[in-house]
Amino acid sequence: MSRDGCCGQAYSCLFDYDTPRIALIKSRKIGLLNRFIQLGILAYVIGWVFIWEKGYQEFDIVVSSVTSKVKGVVVTNTTELGVKIWDVADYIIPAQEENAVFVMTNLILTQNQTQGHCPELPETSFCSKEQPCTPGYVGKQSNGVQTGKCVPYNSTVKTCEIFAWCPVENDTHVPDPAFLNGAENFTVLIKNNIWYPKFQVSKRNILSNISSSYLKTCQYDKVNHPFCPIFRLGNIVKEAGESFSDMAVQGGVMGIQINWNCDLDRKLTYCVPKYSFRRLDNREIDHNVSPGYNFRFAKYYKDSNGVESRTLMKVYGIRFDILVFGTAGKFDIIPTMINIGSGAALFGVATVLCDMIVFHFFKKRHYYREKKYKYVEDYDELVGSECGSNP
Amino acid sequence: MSRDGCCGQAYSCLFDYDTPRIALIKSRKIGLLNRFIQLGILAYVIGWVFIWEKGYQEFDIVVSSVTSKVKGVVVTNTTELGVKIWDVADYIIPAQEENAVFVMTNLILTQNQTQGHCPELPETSFCSKEQPCTPGYVGKQSNGVQTGKCVPYNSTVKTCEIFAWCPVENDTHVPDPAFLNGAENFTVLIKNNIWYPKFQVSKRNILSNISSSYLKTCQYDKVNHPFCPIFRLGNIVKEAGESFSDMAVQGGVMGIQINWNCDLDRKLTYCVPKYSFRRLDNREIDHNVSPGYNFRFAKYYKDSNGVESRTLMKVYGIRFDILVFGTAGKFDIIPTMINIGSGAALFGVATVLCDMIVFHFFKKRHYYREKKYKYVEDYDELVGSECGSNP
Amino acid sequence: MSRDGCCGQAYSCLFDYDTPRIALIKSRKIGLLNRFIQLGILAYVIGWVFIWEKGYQEFDIVVSSVTSKVKGVVVTNTTELGVKIWDVADYIIPAQEENAVFVMTNLILTQNQTQGHCPELPETSFCSKEQPCTPGYVGKQSNGVQTGKCVPYNSTVKTCEIFAWCPVENDTHVPDPAFLNGAENFTVLIKNNIWYPKFQVSKRNILSNISSSYLKTCQYDKVNHPFCPIFRLGNIVKEAGESFSDMAVQGGVMGIQINWNCDLDRKLTYCVPKYSFRRLDNREIDHNVSPGYNFRFAKYYKDSNGVESRTLMKVYGIRFDILVFGTAGKFDIIPTMINIGSGAALFGVATVLCDMIVFHFFKKRHYYREKKYKYVEDYDELVGSECGSNP
Repeated sequence: MSRDGCCGQAYSCLFDYDTPRIALIKSRKIGLLNRFIQLGILAYVIGWVFIWEKGYQEFDIVVSSVTSKVKGVVVTNTTELGVKIWDVADYIIPAQEENAVFVMTNLILTQNQTQGHCPELPETSFCSKEQPCTPGYVGKQSNGVQTGKCVPYNSTVKTCEIFAWCPVENDTHVPDPAFLNGAENFTVLIKNNIWYPKFQVSKRNILSNISSSYLKTCQYDKVNHPFCPIFRLGNIVKEAGESFSDMAVQGGVMGIQINWNCDLDRKLTYCVPKYSFRRLDNREIDHNVSPGYNFRFAKYYKDSNGVESRTLMKVYGIRFDILVFGTAGKFDIIPTMINIGSGAALFGVATVLCDMIVFHFFKKRHYYREKKYKYVEDYDELVGSECGSNP
Repeated sequence: MSRDGCCGQAYSCLFDYDTPRIALIKSRKIGLLNRFIQLGILAYVIGWVFIWEKGYQEFDIVVSSVTSKVKGVVVTNTTELGVKIWDVADYIIPAQEENAVFVMTNLILTQNQTQGHCPELPETSFCSKEQPCTPGYVGKQSNGVQTGKCVPYNSTVKTCEIFAWCPVENDTHVPDPAFLNGAENFTVLIKNNIWYPKFQVSKRNILSNISSSYLKTCQYDKVNHPFCPIFRLGNIVKEAGESFSDMAVQGGVMGIQINWNCDLDRKLTYCVPKYSFRRLDNREIDHNVSPGYNFRFAKYYKDSNGVESRTLMKVYGIRFDILVFGTAGKFDIIPTMINIGSGAALFGVATVLCDMIVFHFFKKRHYYREKKYKYVEDYDELVGSECGSNP
Repeated sequence: MSRDGCCGQAYSCLFDYDTPRIALIKSRKIGLLNRFIQLGILAYVIGWVFIWEKGYQEFDIVVSSVTSKVKGVVVTNTTELGVKIWDVADYIIPAQEENAVFVMTNLILTQNQTQGHCPELPETSFCSKEQPCTPGYVGKQSNGVQTGKCVPYNSTVKTCEIFAWCPVENDTHVPDPAFLNGAENFTVLIKNNIWYPKFQVSKRNILSNISSSYLKTCQYDKVNHPFCPIFRLGNIVKEAGESFSDMAVQGGVMGIQINWNCDLDRKLTYCVPKYSFRRLDNREIDHNVSPGYNFRFAKYYKDSNGVESRTLMKVYGIRFDILVFGTAGKFDIIPTMINIGSGAALFGVATVLCDMIVFHFFKKRHYYREKKYKYVEDYDELVGSECGSNP
């Protein structure tokens, strides 16, 4: 009956249908076991892969753009500076950044610095006749270059003279409580525009159902105003489990995390931002160097003779990093098929498992085995050495 | 014939070959149906998974670094400031940013501010004998701290006196047309360096076949100069479907999107940037607060007596965010095998489908069924209750 | 024996067990071949997919926050400026950035610019009676607007008069060696906080086993101090295979890459940063425009008469971009199951391959084929045309 010619093979290839022969065992025990295992696999594939992990979706990660605007004024009253007011142009440095905003909270001011010679701070460079200064030496923590002279810092202490912006900044004492502790009451408006390039979907954190008048008065609150994009600085720090007054002294970095996990198979209005807050800098004093967050910044002036002077500010403050992340998922045929294919392959495992149980643990396994298997002797052996054994 | 000893099992495990027994049905109808379904699955796996979605590739997302440089000068002529020229150092704030560049297009200038007492703007704090001012109160939109006094703002209106940088900025009237509307003709050169860490591939947006002389004269054009990295600001805004003159008044945020989707199985020269432009800030006035994009910025001066004054600038402008994204794909054995495996699993589905059709809808299903199935009675039943029934 | 009623079908669906009938061929050759192919597939699935590519893990990409702090002073001595000291507040512009830090290394200073009329530079706008100037024209490389007059630039050359910040900056000669070549010895402390949102895992680049005293003295070294977060600028550039002195002249962009690839199935202490350095800007002079990295920046002053002047600085320098990337993997049931499913499907391929070999290339293929296949004639043909042929 078998066709072996070339034409015959093509014919049989096209018009023959191969279907595996099945031993259909009429047994309640085995049948139920089989269905039970299959049900487990089906439940796993549908429940876990498809419903829980959304295995039918393709994913894309967010592309984001952020602008921010801080509001608030604060008055300070110190003996050195007198009564002074600080507004946005004074305490935001630099005036604009892309994904962050820095708010000054503390300050060490060194006014009227000019380039010249003056004694170094006592902390780093004591000197005496036995321990002279090295001309041209620059210490690791130093603010200038040593001239080699040893000059009196005050009536009791002598330090190396340096060429630097003089007088040298003395940052040993950081104001505590922080100079601009009132920054706690400032508010920041965050505008965030996101985009999922793969799905060509874009959204803004100012949702379309929010009115302009609401935006003028609202303030973010996790429970009552979860979609208001205006945040009180003190609340941000508090939600992260930190104390603003503590953080204001040495500065720090706060993360404002905006999570845009979206299921694009649902309506786009369900795709909303979720805000959370986290402190990003290292608080552990033991494994830390220059704790908090600060940097130096200068305003330059020129007098009528053209001599340049500057006001050096060692600025401590909180940098708010706006970290936007998220993945959007949308139905896609590829991952669906991959998961269905894998699920189907797992279905085959059910039969393998059942067979293992039936043919190894059942009392009557020999009976079932004979129905399933057809023993075929090796042709060579059949013909050769074991010739004559019944196949 | 069956070996059951431990040694025999290991022997049979190694030297026996299990192959499913097949019922080969010689039927044109069924054979063709089967091949047709298999062909469909093959076409799907090859066409969609492998060719369209590049299922044989592993993917990596881009790491990017951007620098930008703006060129252009503009002359303004106002009664307040006279004829004035603005160049790069004047209108780019801050002087350098990482993935963005801000170009000032409009400006509210408040010159010679000093710290002191002055009346608040009438918009926010009218006052009278009946409606007195609260000492120490800071309004939400206010620029300073109320002293408690009620002073004349002009000949008709009285407002609360505040301690602030005086005179207070009056930003009720935004110049329209924008002060630096000529910024439309500025050009920005964008240098972008990308890297795919997984594949150790890096590229620059200044392609290697572009000559230095071409770069000196070219200007980006979607059709004629798609790889020129120099963009006219007006064209960027126009391509995004916006009007530069409108946008310049209130400011805004423009996205310059650079798409680096690369197929690394092809030559690296085919991996080129694709530029597109999109407005990122919210134009819907209804659901918006502080539309456009602006920030405050001050220049500080000191007179010969050491008194500090400042020029406050409310700067409106367009921030160009350079958003770089893209995925590179390269042949990898893992996703290829996963997809081939899934495809193979789907092939099995063809037989299942055919069986369902043949054994449920064909007229002669009983004939075929008997060839495929071997009915095995439950051994217990066989021996017990239904003893004697033919198997 | 077949039940065909609706009730019977449900009964058989629940209590029947379908298992494929197997031809068990007792042949050493075929058995070993089969096991060999299966072993290969198993080795591939376990070795490559699971061990090498960690196919049992789900992946997440890093979210990062970076702060940096530069330390160092340098003294310059030029005829124009005299002896001058430069500290952090002078050479870091802007004072703080998010993922980058810019260090000035070279400088073209144009002091005492005021708005007015002066001759343009000779490079761009020679003029004569035959080649007059165009009032209102702004050249591509120009610093101002032409007034139309042709005025002497020096004793020999005449150029167009422009309205600009005067005197015009002359940047034809870039100082070489670089003005602040000593920046090579500056150090930068980088603090990096990373987060894997999917796994809720965060880490800092200042590892918890590093003491505060170590941090005060250490300096990054690939071999001896791979986890010290303090980098000498000169070493960064050297590790990238560049020369600091060369780079300092024209400026450039350096990438400090921090790789956070983590296997979260192991202890978190094994998840450590890996630093590497790469130059990001284009060095090929042929395909480049405005090589290196520079920008213009101005300090504004006001004299006692209220006239504004500025010091324009064309600042060349190295921008250090801190590029943080990495993926974390953690065991997850989904990818594990997908890969097991795919592996199982590949196992089926072993049987298909063996069958192909046995039934096409073995001498005694007909013998084995008859054992495996049961030839079922088409019922229609059986009954119709070919009626009477033995099935």
